[in-house]
Amino acid sequence: MIKISMGYRFLKKLTRVEDAIALVSKKLMIKLGIEEISFDESLGRVLAEDIISNFDEPLIDKSALEGYAIRGADILLASQYSPVRLEVIGEVRIGEIPTMKGAQGKAVKIATGAALPDGFDTVVPVEYVKVLNDEIEILKSFPIGDNVIKRGEDFREGQIMLRKGKIINPFDISMLSLLRKIRVKVLEKLRIAIIPTGSEIIEPSEAGDAYKTVNTNSYTLYALCKEPWMEPHRLEIVKDDLEALTRIIKSSIENHHALIITGGTSVGELDLVPEAVQKAGKVDLMIRGVGIQPGRATGVAVVNGKPVFMLSGFPVACVTGFIAVVRPLLYKIVNALEPPRPVVKAVLKSKVSSSLGVAKYVRVKVKKIGEKLFAEPVRVTGSSALSSLTESNGFLVIPPESEGFDSNSEVEVILYSSIQEQG
Amino acid sequence: MIKISMGYRFLKKLTRVEDAIALVSKKLMIKLGIEEISFDESLGRVLAEDIISNFDEPLIDKSALEGYAIRGADILLASQYSPVRLEVIGEVRIGEIPTMKGAQGKAVKIATGAALPDGFDTVVPVEYVKVLNDEIEILKSFPIGDNVIKRGEDFREGQIMLRKGKIINPFDISMLSLLRKIRVKVLEKLRIAIIPTGSEIIEPSEAGDAYKTVNTNSYTLYALCKEPWMEPHRLEIVKDDLEALTRIIKSSIENHHALIITGGTSVGELDLVPEAVQKAGKVDLMIRGVGIQPGRATGVAVVNGKPVFMLSGFPVACVTGFIAVVRPLLYKIVNALEPPRPVVKAVLKSKVSSSLGVAKYVRVKVKKIGEKLFAEPVRVTGSSALSSLTESNGFLVIPPESEGFDSNSEVEVILYSSIQEQG
Repeated sequence: MIKISMGYRFLKKLTRVEDAIALVSKKLMIKLGIEEISFDESLGRVLAEDIISNFDEPLIDKSALEGYAIRGADILLASQYSPVRLEVIGEVRIGEIPTMKGAQGKAVKIATGAALPDGFDTVVPVEYVKVLNDEIEILKSFPIGDNVIKRGEDFREGQIMLRKGKIINPFDISMLSLLRKIRVKVLEKLRIAIIPTGSEIIEPSEAGDAYKTVNTNSYTLYALCKEPWMEPHRLEIVKDDLEALTRIIKSSIENHHALIITGGTSVGELDLVPEAVQKAGKVDLMIRGVGIQPGRATGVAVVNGKPVFMLSGFPVACVTGFIAVVRPLLYKIVNALEPPRPVVKAVLKSKVSSSLGVAKYVRVKVKKIGEKLFAEPVRVTGSSALSSLTESNGFLVIPPESEGFDSNSEVEVILYSSIQEQG
Repeated sequence: MIKISMGYRFLKKLTRVEDAIALVSKKLMIKLGIEEISFDESLGRVLAEDIISNFDEPLIDKSALEGYAIRGADILLASQYSPVRLEVIGEVRIGEIPTMKGAQGKAVKIATGAALPDGFDTVVPVEYVKVLNDEIEILKSFPIGDNVIKRGEDFREGQIMLRKGKIINPFDISMLSLLRKIRVKVLEKLRIAIIPTGSEIIEPSEAGDAYKTVNTNSYTLYALCKEPWMEPHRLEIVKDDLEALTRIIKSSIENHHALIITGGTSVGELDLVPEAVQKAGKVDLMIRGVGIQPGRATGVAVVNGKPVFMLSGFPVACVTGFIAVVRPLLYKIVNALEPPRPVVKAVLKSKVSSSLGVAKYVRVKVKKIGEKLFAEPVRVTGSSALSSLTESNGFLVIPPESEGFDSNSEVEVILYSSIQEQG
């Protein structure tokens, strides 16, 4: 674990993001329950069982396209100049049980996906067939077995089709329906308490003067946790009162799987949150100060085996703390992989600098000019400037080992909104 | 508009995806209503008004960090070797109204985000201050105005903060809360009818033999449309009956903004869907056959100003039709930009080929081996092989002007699931 010094007086140590995540992961002891729900309501939930097929798919040999089912041996020498004539003895539509049998010199008209009659082994696409009353002429040779979807070609009985721990996507829903897996086991939702703190904080709906701060963080975090496998709960604002804080944190740990507390985490005297966390249960780990900027004040504790995230009260620092530290750990709790995020390469329009040892989250606006992408930093400082998040559409993360990027360098930007085209 | 020939007998013309989208866009006549909802329920909805600030943010000058508010002129010559002494006349905490005034030779302890008392103009970070009872020594010079967040620095009264047409993201929710915009105007949800057709189709919960096809498409499409701004409705399976089809399509056009019909779109005799669509209302446009593979049978009509998508009944072709044609047009209806999708570069593990004039959607599994990404095609043919979608984690799209990619070439993959690391 590498500790980085910050400032010169309070030699405060910052824990690197990867170290914080690794340390916390090791201490977590969360046992999530399993729910059985209808497959068509399972989108975005975490699969809690391996899904195994109990039949071959397809269950019968089928035609891959519209054409004529034939015996491949009959047309081995067919060509446009010496077509092969076959007698058409019937037709199989999709969903029908074939009533005829295949034989030498015979053919059957067949629809895409329709069952191949016994005795036939090959399908000739309709484009290569000339129809003459009850006969057809085949104008091209096809290998035996061509255009036939064989029984079990997609998958076999007993095969694991979806693995435990996968976050169910639309295609998985499709597979569940095909397997007729009507009820499916998923992890219970991860209950997350979002606790705003600070005597200066008021709700958006409350009256307050210019000296008060509007609670924006609870709503941002709630929205960031609005995944089908999470169940965020916005709790009421807690004043800067050690006893009240301790009480709320204690009961929240009992009723939730994870806590996200905002405000009261920096080194000021009113920062009672870490103290309250200490008193709220058995503290297995307490990290204060993480190597991200904004968001250095981010803290995370493990209390009674559960994570208690202490995020800055400043909106942008709160967001970076969530993205860098909270979100990866929430995915770790359910043992699922984080979904891929869109990343683009863009040309940086102005120099950005950072301190060594800190991952700096620069809000940039990526624009498309002609065929090229450009990234313009929206604001360089300020952890409370919310507009920097709404004006930007991505984060440029300057890694801890870099002091920044020069203007015109190519950088990678993690996008969170669409790129607008510019003239 | 470029038409592409396919096969040699039924010279069927395929419309290019971009052309299909452009043609349909021009014909759509959908007037969506506007709803006013609570801001904290607006995530993922389409904003139907410009959001304008009605105050400066911040409303007062604030300290950007923990330190001492001073007059910048007092410390212009301060250094570690000749510190400047100032008298501390009080403290301002966050949320408090300052009771003192700034003056020459004076300082006030100030918290991050606390209001700067009148008469002071600069904040010295706590790290550069030595505390001596009621006095402090400042060890470094700071420019006048440093570490002060000026009134209106984030945004000004009257500024447009969020623009109409934006799909509301978590940071926009944050901005709405800060602006105390408790009620927000959003577009009504786009009602989408999902209509499975085919006499051979049965629901996953129904009993059926091997010759029947399980309805997977309705569930996949429902999941793909499960965005906060869409409201998908799964309708019952419609048999291959022209009258029944016409009736359902007609009533669905009346009650929905868009229709997605699956099955019955290829050239077979049972393909009654396009005929029923023709009878269901005033047809302004009918496109049959789009240059995607799988999914050539994809069709789209505009009936009474509304889009009627006709997707293949084959699961993978249904999905590619949705992704290539339906989804972009749904975003166009609400006049919003499609969100960025994650795209990665990977080394192709085996050759893939395609026909000119057709955008081929190859399902690939992207794996990380060491630091490198590799893309392995999961299956090359088959529009019904559902497992190719659940085993893969991305699409490699071979553009219409390419005949494919060689093994070991670097390709771009649109990811829809996480990349697993491999030893």
